[in-house]
Amino acid sequence: MKILILGGDGYLGWPTAMSFAAAGHDITVADNFLRRRIMQQTDSSPLLIPLALPERVELFNNLFNTSIKVHIGDLCDKSFMDSIFADGGFDAVVHYAEQPSAPYSMIGFDEANMTLQNNISVTFNLIWAVKQYCPSCHIVKLGTMGEYGTPNIDIEEGYITINHKGRSEKFLYPRQAGSLYHTTKILDTDLLWFYVRMNNLRVTDLMQGPVYGMRTPEISADPRLATFFSYDDIFGTLVNRFIIQVVADIPLTVYGKGGQTRGYLNINDTIACVSLAVHNPPPAGEMCIYNQFTETFSVNDLALLVQQAGKNVGLDVHIQNLPNPRKEKEEHYYNPAHSALIALGHTPTVMTHALLEEMLHYALEHRQNICSSRIAPRVKW
Amino acid sequence: MKILILGGDGYLGWPTAMSFAAAGHDITVADNFLRRRIMQQTDSSPLLIPLALPERVELFNNLFNTSIKVHIGDLCDKSFMDSIFADGGFDAVVHYAEQPSAPYSMIGFDEANMTLQNNISVTFNLIWAVKQYCPSCHIVKLGTMGEYGTPNIDIEEGYITINHKGRSEKFLYPRQAGSLYHTTKILDTDLLWFYVRMNNLRVTDLMQGPVYGMRTPEISADPRLATFFSYDDIFGTLVNRFIIQVVADIPLTVYGKGGQTRGYLNINDTIACVSLAVHNPPPAGEMCIYNQFTETFSVNDLALLVQQAGKNVGLDVHIQNLPNPRKEKEEHYYNPAHSALIALGHTPTVMTHALLEEMLHYALEHRQNICSSRIAPRVKW
Repeated sequence: MKILILGGDGYLGWPTAMSFAAAGHDITVADNFLRRRIMQQTDSSPLLIPLALPERVELFNNLFNTSIKVHIGDLCDKSFMDSIFADGGFDAVVHYAEQPSAPYSMIGFDEANMTLQNNISVTFNLIWAVKQYCPSCHIVKLGTMGEYGTPNIDIEEGYITINHKGRSEKFLYPRQAGSLYHTTKILDTDLLWFYVRMNNLRVTDLMQGPVYGMRTPEISADPRLATFFSYDDIFGTLVNRFIIQVVADIPLTVYGKGGQTRGYLNINDTIACVSLAVHNPPPAGEMCIYNQFTETFSVNDLALLVQQAGKNVGLDVHIQNLPNPRKEKEEHYYNPAHSALIALGHTPTVMTHALLEEMLHYALEHRQNICSSRIAPRVKW
Repeated sequence: MKILILGGDGYLGWPTAMSFAAAGHDITVADNFLRRRIMQQTDSSPLLIPLALPERVELFNNLFNTSIKVHIGDLCDKSFMDSIFADGGFDAVVHYAEQPSAPYSMIGFDEANMTLQNNISVTFNLIWAVKQYCPSCHIVKLGTMGEYGTPNIDIEEGYITINHKGRSEKFLYPRQAGSLYHTTKILDTDLLWFYVRMNNLRVTDLMQGPVYGMRTPEISADPRLATFFSYDDIFGTLVNRFIIQVVADIPLTVYGKGGQTRGYLNINDTIACVSLAVHNPPPAGEMCIYNQFTETFSVNDLALLVQQAGKNVGLDVHIQNLPNPRKEKEEHYYNPAHSALIALGHTPTVMTHALLEEMLHYALEHRQNICSSRIAPRVKW
């Protein structure tokens, strides 16, 4: 298949590109290095700074005998988006090209506005490029479980049938996010849902939970192919941050009561689910929505899991409760459905102690790079 | 009260400004004449071109001994928005400043993108100006009944409690619009709802139906104070268009089967409801949502009503069914709640034959201005 990956320089975009290319697909990636710029601006360097995208692509193409193509530019610029589509003929586009940090989106007006404008514009330009250049192309969009928030009823996969006063209707599941970043993903969903209905597009919207991990088969083959592994307060997801805290001998910082529960998944599950989505396009005029995560954990659950993994590798791990820098429920009901991707054939990777220990070993290997001052939350809302 | 009206040059913004000023409030209006520019661009002139805003304001201030202030500029520019708020101290902001034409938003990429960027940016800049300059200021936002679409269950006022698998939660009522313009109003709702919860703003979101009419007490006092009365395919709302078709001796054009049902209201009801909203601010951290319309009619109902009113003034009215240029349900369930504004004291204006006849007389007075080629739908989706 001919597949375009928007945001191909990112934490997940790059491993996804490698995986598809290694499987024999014809891959094009696009990126403008927005994440790298925000990292510099916020002093949020990852454990290892990945090679520049063109170098990584060249290295990967040589090692794996593939021919990933690279477009560098801003997808908010419709003419840049169009120039990629003018080559034509994509079977699928995987859209990761958004400002992905919730804390960054909550710093102030400039950061919030940039997040809003960037995320909406890329999605909008993509919708129109597909409408104009290849209407049958399947858009696979990375959404987030954060769109749903933490409602007091079960979270279904994208839609819910409401029975009300003796009548019934199927709706998009109502959304209510906890950061501006997550809200921009709701706006993406609204826009995609509208144009799917109006222009018979094919869309899969993946409501993904927080991802952890840094090793995929291609990265294991050559460490120079590494992706971003962030542990700071801006880009670090929870498990990745805890792993670094263990290695840096900093207590695991639990925000508030620690009952905040989310659905987590391994980076290899992201790649597997995106691949399943790409290979199972919906009919024209339909938007499939899948909840993409493997297991739910509370922050306290994860702290205990990581503490045990730390003990197993001989490290003493403390847990510290911090005042919560975010406005969020610290104790709540959380029961999201996540059977659709499994029905498509997904075999999930569960978060074992062994897996956490492997992450700890990786972090120990690079512990000299850890900057402890980047971990405590600098953004409050 | 000190009230800021964004979009104060518009069909509804201007009569609202006059009404508040005449009632003794301290009024500031802002506009960038976007609607006038789009009218020129799409050859969509109204029945009478209203005086330029500064002239209308000067005339009104002299006639009514008021002191409406005018700011001319683009509210998508945060520094312009801020410059208005720097004077400070608004008790309420009424936000009409959006590209309001559904057909315009469906012409092509440029028109869609402009609608999206304009509508989102003004709302976002307003939210931030209120956060930064006067967090207790009440935002009264004009939304649209079109956000809900035409679901098969009753439409409640903004929110719905969903009972699901033995549990219960109150959500924003799920939204699914029929044009990009209406979709931008959904995005507005999402953004307002997020910042209300995060920053304890006070917001009233008015889900308004299609408005008809052109006479308000101030306009009746001096016809030079007239507002836009559009009948074209881009800006003309249904009843206003039918009135002009009667006078121009063109059959009333019903799109498709004509079972499309919406909630309509008179321009004086808009003003009364906005005034009630302004005078009843929600507590900080709450978003009140009211469904703002008076009566539901199908297109066929309205065609028959206008036909009868035409007969009453001696005009022969034909009705013609056109292929529907829009993607919408032509026969559907429609039962939206609309009791909240009445509970606040609103006395609705019903659409009587007498009222339609008054509109016909106004149109007859200006029939030499009617350009028949502007009525048939030029935009299809």
